[in-house]
Amino acid sequence: MEAVRRHLLLPPAPLRPNPLSSLAEVEPSPVIIGGMVLDIHAKPSVPPHPGTTVPGMVKYISGGVARNIAECMSKLGTQPFMISVVGNDMAGDFLLKYWRSAGLRTEGILQADDVATPVVSNVFDGSGELVAGVASVEAVEIFITPSWIYRFRHHITNAPLVMLDANLPPESLKAACITAYESGVPVLFEPVSVVKSRRIAPVAEYITCTSPNEIELVAMANSLSPSLKYNFHKIEQFKEKADAVEYLFEMLSPAMFFLLEKGIKLLIVTLGPNGVFICCKEHTNFMKDQRKCKQTLFSRQLLEKMDGCFPLNSRVNLCGESSSRTCVFHLPAISASVISLTGAGDCLVGGVLSALCAGFDIIQSVAIGVAIAKASVESEANIPDDISAANIADDAQSVLHSAKVLWCK
Amino acid sequence: MEAVRRHLLLPPAPLRPNPLSSLAEVEPSPVIIGGMVLDIHAKPSVPPHPGTTVPGMVKYISGGVARNIAECMSKLGTQPFMISVVGNDMAGDFLLKYWRSAGLRTEGILQADDVATPVVSNVFDGSGELVAGVASVEAVEIFITPSWIYRFRHHITNAPLVMLDANLPPESLKAACITAYESGVPVLFEPVSVVKSRRIAPVAEYITCTSPNEIELVAMANSLSPSLKYNFHKIEQFKEKADAVEYLFEMLSPAMFFLLEKGIKLLIVTLGPNGVFICCKEHTNFMKDQRKCKQTLFSRQLLEKMDGCFPLNSRVNLCGESSSRTCVFHLPAISASVISLTGAGDCLVGGVLSALCAGFDIIQSVAIGVAIAKASVESEANIPDDISAANIADDAQSVLHSAKVLWCK
Repeated sequence: MEAVRRHLLLPPAPLRPNPLSSLAEVEPSPVIIGGMVLDIHAKPSVPPHPGTTVPGMVKYISGGVARNIAECMSKLGTQPFMISVVGNDMAGDFLLKYWRSAGLRTEGILQADDVATPVVSNVFDGSGELVAGVASVEAVEIFITPSWIYRFRHHITNAPLVMLDANLPPESLKAACITAYESGVPVLFEPVSVVKSRRIAPVAEYITCTSPNEIELVAMANSLSPSLKYNFHKIEQFKEKADAVEYLFEMLSPAMFFLLEKGIKLLIVTLGPNGVFICCKEHTNFMKDQRKCKQTLFSRQLLEKMDGCFPLNSRVNLCGESSSRTCVFHLPAISASVISLTGAGDCLVGGVLSALCAGFDIIQSVAIGVAIAKASVESEANIPDDISAANIADDAQSVLHSAKVLWCK
Repeated sequence: MEAVRRHLLLPPAPLRPNPLSSLAEVEPSPVIIGGMVLDIHAKPSVPPHPGTTVPGMVKYISGGVARNIAECMSKLGTQPFMISVVGNDMAGDFLLKYWRSAGLRTEGILQADDVATPVVSNVFDGSGELVAGVASVEAVEIFITPSWIYRFRHHITNAPLVMLDANLPPESLKAACITAYESGVPVLFEPVSVVKSRRIAPVAEYITCTSPNEIELVAMANSLSPSLKYNFHKIEQFKEKADAVEYLFEMLSPAMFFLLEKGIKLLIVTLGPNGVFICCKEHTNFMKDQRKCKQTLFSRQLLEKMDGCFPLNSRVNLCGESSSRTCVFHLPAISASVISLTGAGDCLVGGVLSALCAGFDIIQSVAIGVAIAKASVESEANIPDDISAANIADDAQSVLHSAKVLWCK
């Protein structure tokens, strides 16, 4: 195991340029495909009233699942290549500002005059409930076409991994999935919402990993099943956290095992305050081509702090090739002083992907993701501005120390 | 009269530079002081529902009374000097974009990091009713301070006229009013809303002109009167338009005459579809210093088209010095295919001010303002993009032909 770990941490081998392809020099970066959205949050300081404008605060927040994940990865030192669309308008310029200031590549982001940048405009009441909200996000469906995605096929085929959000139209999901699959590039499908999570059905065979919550998990399983046989009932109160986890495992494991049967290699099921389930075959190695793993300053700092913290390794050989047991792990959430829940799920995925790209194994990567999600919850912004490697390492270690194997058969 | 008119149309005499003042070379431009606001309009395509975001359209519109008036003037060829504030944020950049593209001066517009650009975020329902709206516009009150205004006192004292919107805090209204008044620069006070119109009370003696609707007129009169003796009851239905005008004159003339007694020289009272009342002393000449009148391409085109159309001149000598009769004129509205009413009142004021700056007399200027307000009503934008001099001249002429002297005593 130690040998395997050391192998994972070797600097990536140089890519051999393909003399036949003029684009062979494309730097291998994780490719993130999906929506970039401007969120406008209006919060009145007196009770809102139909027919009248009341005084309050209006905030502009960079959002969109794929955009959030990419921003999170870039803040962890991984430089993602984003494929998306914005308009040649105020909101488009606003969303691109971070990209430019962070030195991220923008060729994959179509900015055009006839596009209205995706925007969600919400008015809340004093207690934070949504009074009225309007989403204008068709641009993702209309303009992130298969042909726009194919323009960047060399980025996809060279990538260490690809992340797709379910806002993409079905034909574009398929185009991206098949391009990645044919080059052996792992694909993470982020389900976005219960309705959109069902878009996994026609492409499930090409998906390596997905990161649903409980309800999306069940919706995805049902979308792939001839009958709607999976379901989920939330129970709010348990005496012990362990009872909640046991109940959730019993409730959700049929859907998880079914998705694994359908070809998904790795499930990261987010359970809110109850943590995360990881479900995969024992020999699953998300990063098929370890040469594409690339350490960053952040990942080196994490590694130094976390060195030696692999409590599950003695019990489950995730990198071995000989076994085909299916395993379910539980990683707890970390208690946090909640400021804003938005963006937490996207930070979890961004943290997992950055850690995988840096050569961490799946369990470590999800623990790092959980730690980054906690940092997001404790920040007003979707993606926290300052992510401290020391804090993340501490939190990830505490997650790993409480991690459990729930099932291995 | 013809001699007076010809005099008005002479090219402006060159300003003699004051060798004592380093800022004497400030180009005389009308000065517009007040709010620049981003309006966000969200319109769902299905009925809005609390707790859920529904699909729809989100539009960004440049607004704010003073900003609208300044944009309108610039589209009519007059280059206003704007004194305002925006944040160093997305909305601030958006609002400044027009200023930069139109080559307007921006030194008077404070853009600072600690400012949140004024914004109004509204969600409408399918029939255009406001479901919920939040206004965050404190920056105008906090940052357009007397000291910010004093920085541009040479612009004010050199200006042909100054326009103030009632969003300004009282101490800033006073600072601007006194600076203008002491240099004999006429001041137009735009009341903005019934509540804010009352801000005229402490500065009425310095105000040359104001442009209220019926309710604001009465509110302003009451704010200056020891008892609340003025009132206004709207009557929706009249058999004849003339009956409505007669009723409105009876209802509103006490408040108008009272404001004139309080020192206001010129009232432009907007009556929606019933047109406009102009109330002033017979010898009123808004532009005290005709040398500051400056023709523009647009005003030359208007003049060519409107030449000879001065139907009221034979009956009222507005420029004479010998009489002190108080007169009320009525100018009708022009029937329009309504697309959006927002911005129409600001276009009326912008049109009046541009026409006055170009040397038109008061009645002509208001007729031109009415024509430009009609163009605004027939356009989706607050300020229409293409304002045709030929159409404005036609409409202004038809307004002038139907204009009536209601009272002269």
